Amino acid sequence: MAGEFDFIQWIAAQNRAGNLVQLGVGDDLAVLNWPADDLLLVGVDQVLEGVHFDSAVHSPRQIGKKAINRSVSDCAAMGCLPAAAVATVALPKHFSLDQAKELYLGMRQAAEAFDCPIVGGDTAAWDGKLIATVTILGRTSGIRPVARSGAKAGDRIFVTGPLGGSILGRHIEFVPKVALGRELAALASAMIDISDGLSRDLGHICRCSGVGAILQAESVPIHPDAVELSRRDGRAALEHALHDGEDYELLYTTSRPTAPGICIGRIVEKPGMWLQDERKNLRALEIAGWQHVWGSAP
Amino acid sequence: MAGEFDFIQWIAAQNRAGNLVQLGVGDDLAVLNWPADDLLLVGVDQVLEGVHFDSAVHSPRQIGKKAINRSVSDCAAMGCLPAAAVATVALPKHFSLDQAKELYLGMRQAAEAFDCPIVGGDTAAWDGKLIATVTILGRTSGIRPVARSGAKAGDRIFVTGPLGGSILGRHIEFVPKVALGRELAALASAMIDISDGLSRDLGHICRCSGVGAILQAESVPIHPDAVELSRRDGRAALEHALHDGEDYELLYTTSRPTAPGICIGRIVEKPGMWLQDERKNLRALEIAGWQHVWGSAP
Repeated sequence: MAGEFDFIQWIAAQNRAGNLVQLGVGDDLAVLNWPADDLLLVGVDQVLEGVHFDSAVHSPRQIGKKAINRSVSDCAAMGCLPAAAVATVALPKHFSLDQAKELYLGMRQAAEAFDCPIVGGDTAAWDGKLIATVTILGRTSGIRPVARSGAKAGDRIFVTGPLGGSILGRHIEFVPKVALGRELAALASAMIDISDGLSRDLGHICRCSGVGAILQAESVPIHPDAVELSRRDGRAALEHALHDGEDYELLYTTSRPTAPGICIGRIVEKPGMWLQDERKNLRALEIAGWQHVWGSAP
Repeated sequence: MAGEFDFIQWIAAQNRAGNLVQLGVGDDLAVLNWPADDLLLVGVDQVLEGVHFDSAVHSPRQIGKKAINRSVSDCAAMGCLPAAAVATVALPKHFSLDQAKELYLGMRQAAEAFDCPIVGGDTAAWDGKLIATVTILGRTSGIRPVARSGAKAGDRIFVTGPLGGSILGRHIEFVPKVALGRELAALASAMIDISDGLSRDLGHICRCSGVGAILQAESVPIHPDAVELSRRDGRAALEHALHDGEDYELLYTTSRPTAPGICIGRIVEKPGMWLQDERKNLRALEIAGWQHVWGSAP
Protein backbone atom coordinates (compact mmCIF):
# COMPACT_ATOMS: atom_id res chain seq x y z
CA MET A 1 0.00 0.00 0.00
CA ALA A 2 1.20 3.48 -0.80
CA GLY A 3 0.94 6.14 1.90
CA GLU A 4 1.59 3.90 4.90
CA PHE A 5 2.58 6.85 7.07
CA ASP A 6 -0.48 8.82 5.93
CA PHE A 7 -2.57 5.89 7.11
CA ILE A 8 -0.91 5.87 10.54
CA GLN A 9 -1.47 9.61 10.98
CA TRP A 10 -5.08 9.19 9.90
CA ILE A 11 -5.50 6.49 12.55
CA ALA A 12 -3.92 8.68 15.22
CA ALA A 13 -6.43 11.42 14.32
CA GLN A 14 -9.29 8.96 14.99
CA ASN A 15 -8.08 8.59 18.56
CA ARG A 16 -10.57 9.22 21.33
CA ALA A 17 -9.87 9.82 24.98
CA GLY A 18 -11.11 7.44 27.66
CA ASN A 19 -10.91 7.07 31.41
CA LEU A 20 -8.40 4.27 31.16
CA VAL A 21 -6.22 5.77 28.45
CA GLN A 22 -3.63 8.29 29.51
CA LEU A 23 -1.81 8.27 26.15
CA GLY A 24 -3.26 6.60 23.07
CA VAL A 25 -2.18 5.91 19.47
CA GLY A 26 0.88 7.77 18.18
CA ASP A 27 3.71 7.09 20.61
CA ASP A 28 5.99 4.07 21.04
CA LEU A 29 3.47 2.56 23.44
CA ALA A 30 0.07 3.54 24.77
CA VAL A 31 -0.15 4.34 28.49
CA LEU A 32 -3.09 3.09 30.54
CA ASN A 33 -4.15 3.63 34.14
CA TRP A 34 -5.07 0.09 35.05
CA PRO A 35 -7.84 -0.02 37.71
CA ALA A 36 -6.29 -1.32 40.93
CA ASP A 37 -9.19 -3.68 41.70
CA ASP A 38 -9.20 -5.39 38.32
CA LEU A 39 -7.24 -8.37 37.13
CA LEU A 40 -5.78 -7.83 33.66
CA LEU A 41 -6.61 -10.43 31.02
CA VAL A 42 -4.71 -10.49 27.75
CA GLY A 43 -4.80 -12.52 24.57
CA VAL A 44 -4.34 -12.25 20.83
CA ASP A 45 -5.97 -13.61 17.71
CA GLN A 46 -5.26 -13.23 14.04
CA VAL A 47 -7.36 -13.36 10.88
CA LEU A 48 -5.66 -14.52 7.72
CA GLU A 49 -6.61 -14.29 4.07
CA GLY A 50 -7.76 -17.71 2.86
CA VAL A 51 -8.16 -19.06 6.39
CA HIS A 52 -10.55 -16.74 8.21
CA PHE A 53 -11.83 -14.67 5.31
CA ASP A 54 -11.73 -14.40 1.55
CA SER A 55 -11.07 -10.91 0.18
CA ALA A 56 -13.01 -11.83 -2.96
CA VAL A 57 -16.12 -12.35 -0.82
CA HIS A 58 -15.68 -10.25 2.33
CA SER A 59 -15.26 -6.48 2.50
CA PRO A 60 -12.39 -4.81 4.39
CA ARG A 61 -14.96 -3.56 6.91
CA GLN A 62 -16.24 -7.10 7.57
CA ILE A 63 -12.67 -8.35 7.93
CA GLY A 64 -11.83 -5.59 10.42
CA LYS A 65 -14.94 -6.34 12.46
CA LYS A 66 -14.15 -10.03 12.54
CA ALA A 67 -10.58 -9.36 13.69
CA ILE A 68 -11.84 -7.44 16.72
CA ASN A 69 -14.78 -9.73 17.44
CA ARG A 70 -12.65 -12.88 17.56
CA SER A 71 -10.58 -11.36 20.37
CA VAL A 72 -13.59 -9.86 22.14
CA SER A 73 -15.16 -13.33 22.08
CA ASP A 74 -12.21 -14.54 24.17
CA CYS A 75 -13.21 -11.94 26.77
CA ALA A 76 -16.75 -13.33 26.69
CA ALA A 77 -15.34 -16.81 27.25
CA MET A 78 -13.62 -15.68 30.46
CA GLY A 79 -16.52 -13.54 31.68
CA CYS A 80 -14.47 -10.33 31.50
CA LEU A 81 -15.02 -6.95 29.85
CA PRO A 82 -12.95 -5.77 26.87
CA ALA A 83 -10.93 -2.78 28.09
CA ALA A 84 -8.56 -1.87 25.23
CA ALA A 85 -7.17 -3.36 22.02
CA VAL A 86 -4.05 -3.02 19.90
CA ALA A 87 -4.08 -4.14 16.29
CA THR A 88 -1.69 -4.83 13.44
CA VAL A 89 -2.32 -5.17 9.74
CA ALA A 90 -0.01 -6.46 7.04
CA LEU A 91 -1.44 -5.07 3.83
CA PRO A 92 -0.89 -6.41 0.33
CA LYS A 93 0.81 -3.83 -1.87
CA HIS A 94 -2.27 -3.51 -4.09
CA PHE A 95 -4.37 -2.46 -1.07
CA SER A 96 -5.61 1.13 -1.38
CA LEU A 97 -5.65 3.73 1.39
CA ASP A 98 -9.47 3.65 1.24
CA GLN A 99 -9.50 -0.11 1.76
CA ALA A 100 -7.08 0.24 4.69
CA LYS A 101 -9.34 2.87 6.25
CA GLU A 102 -12.37 0.63 5.80
CA LEU A 103 -10.51 -2.19 7.55
CA TYR A 104 -9.67 0.10 10.44
CA LEU A 105 -13.22 1.50 10.60
CA GLY A 106 -14.55 -2.06 10.79
CA MET A 107 -12.23 -2.69 13.72
CA ARG A 108 -13.30 0.49 15.42
CA GLN A 109 -17.00 -0.11 14.83
CA ALA A 110 -16.76 -3.56 16.41
CA ALA A 111 -14.62 -2.31 19.29
CA GLU A 112 -16.86 0.67 20.07
CA ALA A 113 -19.84 -1.65 20.41
CA PHE A 114 -18.04 -2.84 23.55
CA ASP A 115 -16.64 0.56 24.66
CA CYS A 116 -13.19 -0.80 23.84
CA PRO A 117 -10.70 1.81 22.59
CA ILE A 118 -8.05 0.79 20.04
CA VAL A 119 -4.97 2.29 21.71
CA GLY A 120 -2.14 1.21 19.45
CA GLY A 121 -1.03 -0.79 16.47
CA ASP A 122 1.35 -1.33 13.62
CA THR A 123 0.85 -1.12 9.88
CA ALA A 124 3.08 -2.61 7.22
CA ALA A 125 2.74 -3.12 3.50
CA TRP A 126 4.28 -6.25 2.08
CA ASP A 127 4.48 -8.51 -0.89
CA GLY A 128 2.14 -10.97 0.84
CA LYS A 129 -1.47 -11.58 1.70
CA LEU A 130 -3.74 -9.65 4.06
CA ILE A 131 -3.48 -10.48 7.74
CA ALA A 132 -4.77 -8.65 10.81
CA THR A 133 -4.08 -9.38 14.47
CA VAL A 134 -5.83 -8.01 17.50
CA THR A 135 -4.55 -8.15 21.06
CA ILE A 136 -7.28 -7.61 23.62
CA LEU A 137 -6.91 -6.43 27.20
CA GLY A 138 -9.81 -7.47 29.39
CA ARG A 139 -10.74 -6.47 32.91
CA THR A 140 -12.59 -8.47 35.51
CA SER A 141 -14.72 -5.58 36.85
CA GLY A 142 -16.25 -7.57 39.66
CA ILE A 143 -16.32 -11.10 38.30
CA ARG A 144 -14.01 -14.04 38.83
CA PRO A 145 -12.54 -15.02 35.42
CA VAL A 146 -13.68 -18.46 34.22
CA ALA A 147 -10.87 -20.73 33.04
CA ARG A 148 -11.11 -23.90 30.96
CA SER A 149 -9.80 -25.97 33.82
CA GLY A 150 -12.63 -26.03 36.39
CA ALA A 151 -15.01 -28.68 34.99
CA LYS A 152 -15.84 -31.49 37.47
CA ALA A 153 -17.38 -34.92 37.07
CA GLY A 154 -21.14 -34.55 37.39
CA ASP A 155 -21.23 -31.02 35.90
CA ARG A 156 -23.67 -30.45 33.09
CA ILE A 157 -22.46 -29.12 29.75
CA PHE A 158 -24.32 -26.17 28.20
CA VAL A 159 -24.04 -24.32 24.93
CA THR A 160 -25.61 -20.90 24.34
CA GLY A 161 -26.96 -21.41 20.81
CA PRO A 162 -27.26 -23.60 17.73
CA LEU A 163 -24.13 -24.79 15.97
CA GLY A 164 -22.75 -25.64 12.55
CA GLY A 165 -22.53 -24.18 9.08
CA SER A 166 -21.08 -20.82 10.15
CA ILE A 167 -19.15 -20.73 6.89
CA LEU A 168 -22.39 -19.72 5.18
CA GLY A 169 -21.91 -16.28 6.72
CA ARG A 170 -22.17 -16.25 10.51
CA HIS A 171 -18.39 -16.66 10.90
CA ILE A 172 -17.88 -13.10 9.62
CA GLU A 173 -20.90 -11.36 11.13
CA PHE A 174 -21.18 -12.81 14.65
CA VAL A 175 -21.50 -10.65 17.75
CA PRO A 176 -19.44 -11.80 20.76
CA LYS A 177 -21.57 -12.74 23.76
CA VAL A 178 -19.87 -10.51 26.32
CA ALA A 179 -22.93 -9.70 28.48
CA LEU A 180 -23.99 -13.34 28.56
CA GLY A 181 -20.44 -14.40 29.44
CA ARG A 182 -20.49 -12.11 32.48
CA GLU A 183 -23.80 -13.56 33.59
CA LEU A 184 -22.46 -17.10 33.19
CA ALA A 185 -19.28 -16.29 35.14
CA ALA A 186 -21.36 -16.53 38.32
CA LEU A 187 -22.28 -20.17 37.71
CA ALA A 188 -19.82 -21.70 35.20
CA SER A 189 -17.09 -24.07 36.41
CA ALA A 190 -15.34 -23.89 33.02
CA MET A 191 -16.03 -21.90 29.87
CA ILE A 192 -14.74 -21.43 26.30
CA ASP A 193 -16.04 -19.86 23.12
CA ILE A 194 -16.56 -22.20 20.20
CA SER A 195 -14.05 -21.12 17.59
CA ASP A 196 -12.36 -24.42 16.69
CA GLY A 197 -15.59 -26.45 16.74
CA LEU A 198 -17.64 -28.07 19.53
CA SER A 199 -15.65 -31.32 19.56
CA ARG A 200 -12.26 -29.61 19.72
CA ASP A 201 -13.29 -26.89 22.17
CA LEU A 202 -14.99 -29.38 24.48
CA GLY A 203 -11.74 -31.34 24.20
CA HIS A 204 -9.86 -28.27 25.45
CA ILE A 205 -12.11 -28.09 28.53
CA CYS A 206 -11.71 -31.84 29.18
CA ARG A 207 -7.93 -31.78 28.80
CA CYS A 208 -7.47 -28.65 30.93
CA SER A 209 -9.83 -30.01 33.61
CA GLY A 210 -8.56 -33.63 33.54
CA VAL A 211 -12.05 -35.01 32.92
CA GLY A 212 -14.16 -36.60 30.16
CA ALA A 213 -17.53 -35.80 28.60
CA ILE A 214 -20.62 -37.53 27.26
CA LEU A 215 -22.77 -35.59 24.82
CA GLN A 216 -26.40 -36.47 24.09
CA ALA A 217 -26.55 -36.55 20.30
CA GLU A 218 -30.21 -35.50 20.16
CA SER A 219 -29.58 -32.49 22.44
CA VAL A 220 -26.90 -30.83 20.32
CA PRO A 221 -28.65 -27.78 18.82
CA ILE A 222 -28.27 -27.76 15.06
CA HIS A 223 -28.26 -24.43 13.27
CA PRO A 224 -30.33 -24.09 10.08
CA ASP A 225 -27.04 -23.30 8.32
CA ALA A 226 -25.79 -26.78 9.27
CA VAL A 227 -28.93 -28.28 7.72
CA GLU A 228 -28.46 -26.22 4.57
CA LEU A 229 -24.80 -27.20 4.36
CA SER A 230 -25.71 -30.85 4.88
CA ARG A 231 -28.14 -30.61 1.98
CA ARG A 232 -25.33 -29.32 -0.21
CA ASP A 233 -22.45 -31.58 0.82
CA GLY A 234 -24.20 -34.74 2.04
CA ARG A 235 -22.50 -34.73 5.48
CA ALA A 236 -24.94 -35.11 8.37
CA ALA A 237 -26.09 -31.83 9.90
CA LEU A 238 -25.09 -33.18 13.33
CA GLU A 239 -21.52 -33.62 12.08
CA HIS A 240 -21.47 -29.97 11.06
CA ALA A 241 -22.80 -28.96 14.49
CA LEU A 242 -20.16 -31.09 16.23
CA HIS A 243 -17.13 -30.14 14.18
CA ASP A 244 -17.58 -26.91 12.20
CA GLY A 245 -16.02 -23.99 13.96
CA GLU A 246 -16.43 -20.25 14.31
CA ASP A 247 -19.85 -20.43 15.94
CA TYR A 248 -18.66 -18.14 18.75
CA GLU A 249 -21.34 -19.50 21.05
CA LEU A 250 -20.21 -20.07 24.64
CA LEU A 251 -19.66 -23.62 25.84
CA TYR A 252 -19.61 -24.04 29.60
CA THR A 253 -19.99 -26.49 32.44
CA THR A 254 -21.86 -25.97 35.69
CA SER A 255 -22.93 -27.93 38.74
CA ARG A 256 -26.41 -26.40 38.48
CA PRO A 257 -29.20 -28.52 37.01
CA THR A 258 -30.67 -25.62 35.04
CA ALA A 259 -28.83 -22.71 33.46
CA PRO A 260 -29.00 -20.44 30.38
CA GLY A 261 -28.69 -22.17 27.02
CA ILE A 262 -29.11 -25.81 26.02
CA CYS A 263 -27.86 -28.72 28.13
CA ILE A 264 -26.03 -31.05 25.75
CA GLY A 265 -24.36 -33.53 28.09
CA ARG A 266 -22.38 -34.10 31.23
CA ILE A 267 -18.82 -34.23 32.51
CA VAL A 268 -17.51 -37.64 33.60
CA GLU A 269 -14.44 -38.67 35.55
CA LYS A 270 -12.92 -40.87 32.85
CA PRO A 271 -10.94 -38.86 30.28
CA GLY A 272 -12.32 -39.13 26.76
CA MET A 273 -15.36 -37.88 24.86
CA TRP A 274 -18.38 -39.87 23.80
CA LEU A 275 -21.60 -39.32 21.92
CA GLN A 276 -24.69 -41.08 23.28
CA ASP A 277 -27.68 -41.81 21.07
CA GLU A 278 -31.34 -42.12 22.12
CA ARG A 279 -30.90 -45.86 22.82
CA LYS A 280 -28.05 -45.01 25.25
CA ASN A 281 -25.41 -46.45 22.89
CA LEU A 282 -22.02 -44.69 23.25
CA ARG A 283 -19.56 -44.03 20.47
CA ALA A 284 -16.27 -42.18 20.75
CA LEU A 285 -16.47 -38.53 19.74
CA GLU A 286 -13.47 -37.83 17.56
CA ILE A 287 -12.06 -34.32 17.44
CA ALA A 288 -12.33 -32.82 13.99
CA GLY A 289 -11.63 -29.10 13.97
CA TRP A 290 -12.88 -26.83 11.31
CA GLN A 291 -11.09 -25.94 8.17
CA HIS A 292 -12.48 -23.38 5.83
CA VAL A 293 -12.17 -24.50 2.25
CA TRP A 294 -13.47 -21.50 0.39
CA GLY A 295 -13.30 -23.11 -2.99
CA SER A 296 -15.73 -25.84 -1.98
CA ALA A 297 -18.08 -23.60 -0.05
CA PRO A 298 -20.98 -22.14 -1.95
CA MET B 1 2.62 -26.51 9.04
CA ALA B 2 1.35 -29.89 10.11
CA GLY B 3 0.77 -30.47 13.81
CA GLU B 4 -0.45 -26.99 14.69
CA PHE B 5 -2.19 -28.21 17.83
CA ASP B 6 0.89 -30.22 18.86
CA PHE B 7 2.83 -26.98 18.61
CA ILE B 8 0.35 -25.11 20.82
CA GLN B 9 0.49 -27.85 23.47
CA TRP B 10 4.27 -27.85 23.31
CA ILE B 11 4.24 -24.07 23.90
CA ALA B 12 1.87 -24.44 26.86
CA ALA B 13 4.28 -26.98 28.38
CA GLN B 14 7.08 -24.37 28.18
CA ASN B 15 5.04 -22.10 30.41
CA ARG B 16 6.72 -20.78 33.55
CA ALA B 17 5.08 -19.20 36.54
CA GLY B 18 5.80 -15.63 37.55
CA ASN B 19 4.69 -13.17 40.21
CA LEU B 20 2.56 -11.24 37.78
CA VAL B 21 1.03 -14.21 35.99
CA GLN B 22 -1.96 -15.86 37.63
CA LEU B 23 -2.88 -17.93 34.55
CA GLY B 24 -0.56 -18.26 31.56
CA VAL B 25 -0.64 -19.87 28.11
CA GLY B 26 -3.42 -22.36 27.40
CA ASP B 27 -6.71 -20.64 28.18
CA ASP B 28 -8.77 -18.14 26.21
CA LEU B 29 -6.83 -15.31 27.82
CA ALA B 30 -3.95 -15.05 30.27
CA VAL B 31 -4.74 -13.53 33.67
CA LEU B 32 -2.31 -11.08 35.27
CA ASN B 33 -2.24 -9.35 38.66
CA TRP B 34 -1.29 -5.87 37.53
CA PRO B 35 0.71 -4.01 40.22
CA ALA B 36 -1.48 -1.21 41.58
CA ASP B 37 1.32 1.38 41.55
CA ASP B 38 2.32 0.80 37.93
CA LEU B 39 0.97 2.37 34.79
CA LEU B 40 0.39 -0.19 32.03
CA LEU B 41 2.06 0.45 28.69
CA VAL B 42 1.05 -1.56 25.65
CA GLY B 43 2.10 -1.74 22.02
CA VAL B 44 2.56 -4.17 19.16
CA ASP B 45 5.04 -4.76 16.36
CA GLN B 46 5.24 -7.24 13.56
CA VAL B 47 8.07 -8.79 11.57
CA LEU B 48 7.31 -9.84 8.00
CA GLU B 49 9.12 -12.05 5.55
CA GLY B 50 10.83 -9.89 2.94
CA VAL B 51 10.43 -6.71 4.98
CA HIS B 52 12.10 -7.36 8.34
CA PHE B 53 13.88 -10.62 7.61
CA ASP B 54 14.72 -13.01 4.83
CA SER B 55 14.14 -16.68 5.62
CA ALA B 56 16.87 -17.61 3.15
CA VAL B 57 19.38 -15.71 5.29
CA HIS B 58 17.99 -15.62 8.83
CA SER B 59 17.22 -18.60 11.04
CA PRO B 60 13.85 -19.09 12.75
CA ARG B 61 15.60 -18.43 16.07
CA GLN B 62 16.94 -15.09 14.86
CA ILE B 63 13.51 -14.15 13.52
CA GLY B 64 11.85 -15.01 16.84
CA LYS B 65 14.41 -12.95 18.75
CA LYS B 66 13.92 -9.98 16.49
CA ALA B 67 10.14 -10.16 16.87
CA ILE B 68 10.44 -9.84 20.65
CA ASN B 69 13.28 -7.34 20.62
CA ARG B 70 11.46 -4.89 18.35
CA SER B 71 8.65 -4.66 20.90
CA VAL B 72 10.98 -4.60 23.89
CA SER B 73 12.79 -1.70 22.24
CA ASP B 74 9.52 0.25 22.40
CA CYS B 75 9.62 -0.25 26.18
CA ALA B 76 13.17 1.11 26.21
CA ALA B 77 11.97 4.15 24.26
CA MET B 78 9.41 4.95 26.98
CA GLY B 79 11.72 4.13 29.89
CA CYS B 80 9.52 1.28 31.10
CA LEU B 81 10.18 -2.37 31.92
CA PRO B 82 8.83 -5.22 29.76
CA ALA B 83 6.33 -7.12 31.94
CA ALA B 84 4.69 -9.68 29.64
CA ALA B 85 4.27 -10.45 25.96
CA VAL B 86 1.77 -12.21 23.72
CA ALA B 87 2.79 -13.40 20.28
CA THR B 88 1.25 -14.69 17.09
CA VAL B 89 2.81 -16.51 14.17
CA ALA B 90 1.37 -17.23 10.75
CA LEU B 91 3.44 -20.09 9.43
CA PRO B 92 3.90 -21.08 5.79
CA LYS B 93 2.60 -24.60 5.16
CA HIS B 94 6.10 -25.89 4.41
CA PHE B 95 7.28 -24.81 7.89
CA SER B 96 8.26 -27.80 10.03
CA LEU B 97 7.39 -28.31 13.69
CA ASP B 98 11.12 -28.01 14.49
CA GLN B 99 11.33 -24.66 12.73
CA ALA B 100 8.23 -23.45 14.58
CA LYS B 101 9.80 -24.49 17.89
CA GLU B 102 13.02 -22.66 17.01
CA LEU B 103 11.01 -19.53 16.25
CA TYR B 104 9.30 -19.78 19.63
CA LEU B 105 12.57 -20.52 21.43
CA GLY B 106 14.09 -17.42 19.85
CA MET B 107 11.16 -15.42 21.18
CA ARG B 108 11.52 -16.92 24.63
CA GLN B 109 15.28 -16.46 24.74
CA ALA B 110 14.93 -12.77 23.90
CA ALA B 111 12.05 -12.30 26.33
CA GLU B 112 13.79 -14.08 29.22
CA ALA B 113 16.76 -11.76 28.87
CA PHE B 114 14.33 -9.11 30.17
CA ASP B 115 12.42 -11.33 32.63
CA CYS B 116 9.43 -10.99 30.37
CA PRO B 117 7.11 -14.03 30.29
CA ILE B 118 5.27 -14.90 27.05
CA VAL B 119 1.78 -15.39 28.44
CA GLY B 120 -0.30 -16.08 25.36
CA GLY B 121 -0.46 -16.27 21.62
CA ASP B 122 -2.00 -17.68 18.49
CA THR B 123 -0.60 -19.97 15.83
CA ALA B 124 -1.96 -20.50 12.34
CA ALA B 125 -0.65 -22.22 9.25
CA TRP B 126 -1.53 -20.64 5.93
CA ASP B 127 -0.78 -20.53 2.28
CA GLY B 128 1.23 -17.35 2.79
CA LYS B 129 4.55 -16.05 4.01
CA LEU B 130 5.98 -16.06 7.52
CA ILE B 131 4.87 -13.29 9.84
CA ALA B 132 5.19 -12.87 13.60
CA THR B 133 3.67 -10.23 15.83
CA VAL B 134 4.49 -9.42 19.43
CA THR B 135 2.38 -7.34 21.78
CA ILE B 136 4.32 -6.08 24.75
CA LEU B 137 2.98 -4.98 28.12
CA GLY B 138 5.32 -2.64 29.94
CA ARG B 139 5.25 -1.33 33.49
CA THR B 140 6.53 1.96 34.81
CA SER B 141 8.02 0.56 38.05
CA GLY B 142 8.95 3.91 39.48
CA ILE B 143 9.65 5.99 36.40
CA ARG B 144 7.53 8.50 34.51
CA PRO B 145 7.06 7.20 30.94
CA VAL B 146 8.74 9.38 28.32
CA ALA B 147 6.52 10.31 25.37
CA ARG B 148 7.54 11.71 21.98
CA SER B 149 5.73 14.95 22.67
CA GLY B 150 7.82 16.70 25.32
CA ALA B 151 10.69 18.24 23.32
CA LYS B 152 11.10 22.01 23.81
CA ALA B 153 12.99 24.70 21.91
CA GLY B 154 16.51 24.88 23.31
CA ASP B 155 16.66 21.16 24.23
CA ARG B 156 19.67 19.26 22.99
CA ILE B 157 19.22 16.13 20.86
CA PHE B 158 21.16 13.01 21.83
CA VAL B 159 21.56 9.57 20.31
CA THR B 160 22.94 6.59 22.24
CA GLY B 161 25.17 5.07 19.55
CA PRO B 162 26.41 5.07 15.96
CA LEU B 163 23.94 4.77 13.12
CA GLY B 164 23.53 3.35 9.62
CA GLY B 165 24.06 0.14 7.71
CA SER B 166 22.12 -2.08 10.12
CA ILE B 167 21.06 -4.19 7.15
CA LEU B 168 24.54 -5.74 7.24
CA GLY B 169 23.40 -7.67 10.33
CA ARG B 170 22.69 -5.48 13.34
CA HIS B 171 19.00 -5.23 12.45
CA ILE B 172 18.53 -8.89 13.38
CA GLU B 173 20.91 -9.18 16.34
CA PHE B 174 20.41 -5.96 18.29
CA VAL B 175 19.77 -5.88 22.02
CA PRO B 176 17.13 -3.36 23.16
CA LYS B 177 18.51 -0.68 25.49
CA VAL B 178 16.05 -1.14 28.33
CA ALA B 179 18.37 -0.31 31.25
CA LEU B 180 19.68 2.79 29.47
CA GLY B 181 16.12 3.86 28.65
CA ARG B 182 15.23 3.77 32.33
CA GLU B 183 18.26 5.87 33.19
CA LEU B 184 17.36 8.40 30.50
CA ALA B 185 13.74 8.62 31.69
CA ALA B 186 14.97 10.84 34.53
CA LEU B 187 16.31 13.49 32.18
CA ALA B 188 14.70 13.09 28.73
CA SER B 189 11.96 15.48 27.62
CA ALA B 190 11.10 13.24 24.64
CA MET B 191 12.39 9.84 23.52
CA ILE B 192 11.98 7.30 20.70
CA ASP B 193 13.91 4.28 19.48
CA ILE B 194 15.36 4.52 15.99
CA SER B 195 13.51 1.94 13.96
CA ASP B 196 12.38 3.95 10.93
CA GLY B 197 15.64 5.89 10.59
CA LEU B 198 17.05 8.99 12.34
CA SER B 199 15.40 11.48 9.98
CA ARG B 200 11.96 9.90 10.23
CA ASP B 201 12.09 9.20 13.97
CA LEU B 202 13.35 12.70 14.75
CA GLY B 203 10.47 13.86 12.56
CA HIS B 204 8.08 11.95 14.86
CA ILE B 205 9.45 13.79 17.91
CA CYS B 206 9.23 17.16 16.14
CA ARG B 207 5.67 16.57 14.92
CA CYS B 208 4.44 15.26 18.28
CA SER B 209 6.16 18.10 20.15
CA GLY B 210 5.24 20.88 17.71
CA VAL B 211 8.89 21.93 17.29
CA GLY B 212 11.75 21.78 14.76
CA ALA B 213 15.31 20.50 14.87
CA ILE B 214 18.77 21.36 13.59
CA LEU B 215 21.30 18.54 13.36
CA GLN B 216 25.06 19.12 13.21
CA ALA B 217 26.17 17.02 10.27
CA GLU B 218 29.64 16.38 11.68
CA SER B 219 28.22 15.21 15.03
CA VAL B 220 26.02 12.42 13.69
CA PRO B 221 27.83 9.22 14.73
CA ILE B 222 28.40 6.99 11.72
CA HIS B 223 28.56 3.25 12.28
CA PRO B 224 31.35 1.29 10.52
CA ASP B 225 28.54 -0.63 8.78
CA ALA B 226 27.40 2.63 7.18
CA VAL B 227 30.92 3.21 5.91
CA GLU B 228 31.09 -0.33 4.55
CA LEU B 229 27.69 0.04 2.88
CA SER B 230 28.77 3.38 1.42
CA ARG B 231 31.82 1.68 -0.10
CA ARG B 232 29.53 -0.85 -1.75
CA ASP B 233 26.69 1.36 -2.98
CA GLY B 234 28.33 4.76 -3.42
CA ARG B 235 25.84 6.60 -1.21
CA ALA B 236 27.48 8.80 1.45
CA ALA B 237 27.93 7.12 4.83
CA LEU B 238 26.22 10.13 6.45
CA GLU B 239 23.13 9.47 4.32
CA HIS B 240 23.04 5.91 5.63
CA ALA B 241 23.37 7.18 9.21
CA LEU B 242 20.57 9.71 8.66
CA HIS B 243 18.08 7.51 6.86
CA ASP B 244 18.75 3.79 7.30
CA GLY B 245 16.55 2.30 9.97
CA GLU B 246 16.55 -0.49 12.50
CA ASP B 247 19.44 0.86 14.54
CA TYR B 248 17.41 0.56 17.75
CA GLU B 249 19.52 3.22 19.41
CA LEU B 250 17.59 5.67 21.57
CA LEU B 251 17.05 9.20 20.30
CA TYR B 252 16.09 11.70 22.97
CA THR B 253 15.95 15.38 23.85
CA THR B 254 16.90 16.98 27.13
CA SER B 255 17.34 20.44 28.64
CA ARG B 256 20.63 19.30 30.19
CA PRO B 257 23.86 20.40 28.53
CA THR B 258 25.52 17.03 29.04
CA ALA B 259 23.89 13.61 29.04
CA PRO B 260 24.65 9.99 28.03
CA GLY B 261 25.35 9.42 24.33
CA ILE B 262 26.29 11.81 21.57
CA CYS B 263 24.82 15.30 21.19
CA ILE B 264 23.83 15.67 17.54
CA GLY B 265 21.85 18.90 17.49
CA ARG B 266 19.19 21.04 19.10
CA ILE B 267 15.46 21.61 19.13
CA VAL B 268 14.20 24.91 17.68
CA GLU B 269 10.84 26.61 17.82
CA LYS B 270 10.21 26.71 14.06
CA PRO B 271 8.79 23.45 12.72
CA GLY B 272 11.04 21.72 10.19
CA MET B 273 14.34 19.85 10.21
CA TRP B 274 17.68 21.09 8.99
CA LEU B 275 21.21 19.81 8.66
CA GLN B 276 24.01 22.26 9.49
CA ASP B 277 27.50 21.81 8.10
CA GLU B 278 30.78 22.98 9.65
CA ARG B 279 30.47 26.35 7.93
CA LYS B 280 27.06 26.84 9.58
CA ASN B 281 25.23 26.44 6.28
CA LEU B 282 21.76 24.95 6.70
CA ARG B 283 20.02 22.62 4.31
CA ALA B 284 16.62 21.05 4.75
CA LEU B 285 16.76 17.50 6.14
CA GLU B 286 14.35 15.43 4.10
CA ILE B 287 12.73 12.40 5.67
CA ALA B 288 13.73 9.22 3.93
CA GLY B 289 12.76 6.14 5.90
CA TRP B 290 14.46 2.84 5.47
CA GLN B 291 13.40 0.16 3.12
CA HIS B 292 15.12 -3.16 3.16
CA VAL B 293 15.82 -4.40 -0.33
CA TRP B 294 17.29 -7.80 0.34
CA GLY B 295 18.07 -8.53 -3.26
CA SER B 296 20.41 -5.57 -3.49
CA ALA B 297 22.01 -6.05 -0.09
CA PRO B 298 25.16 -8.12 0.09
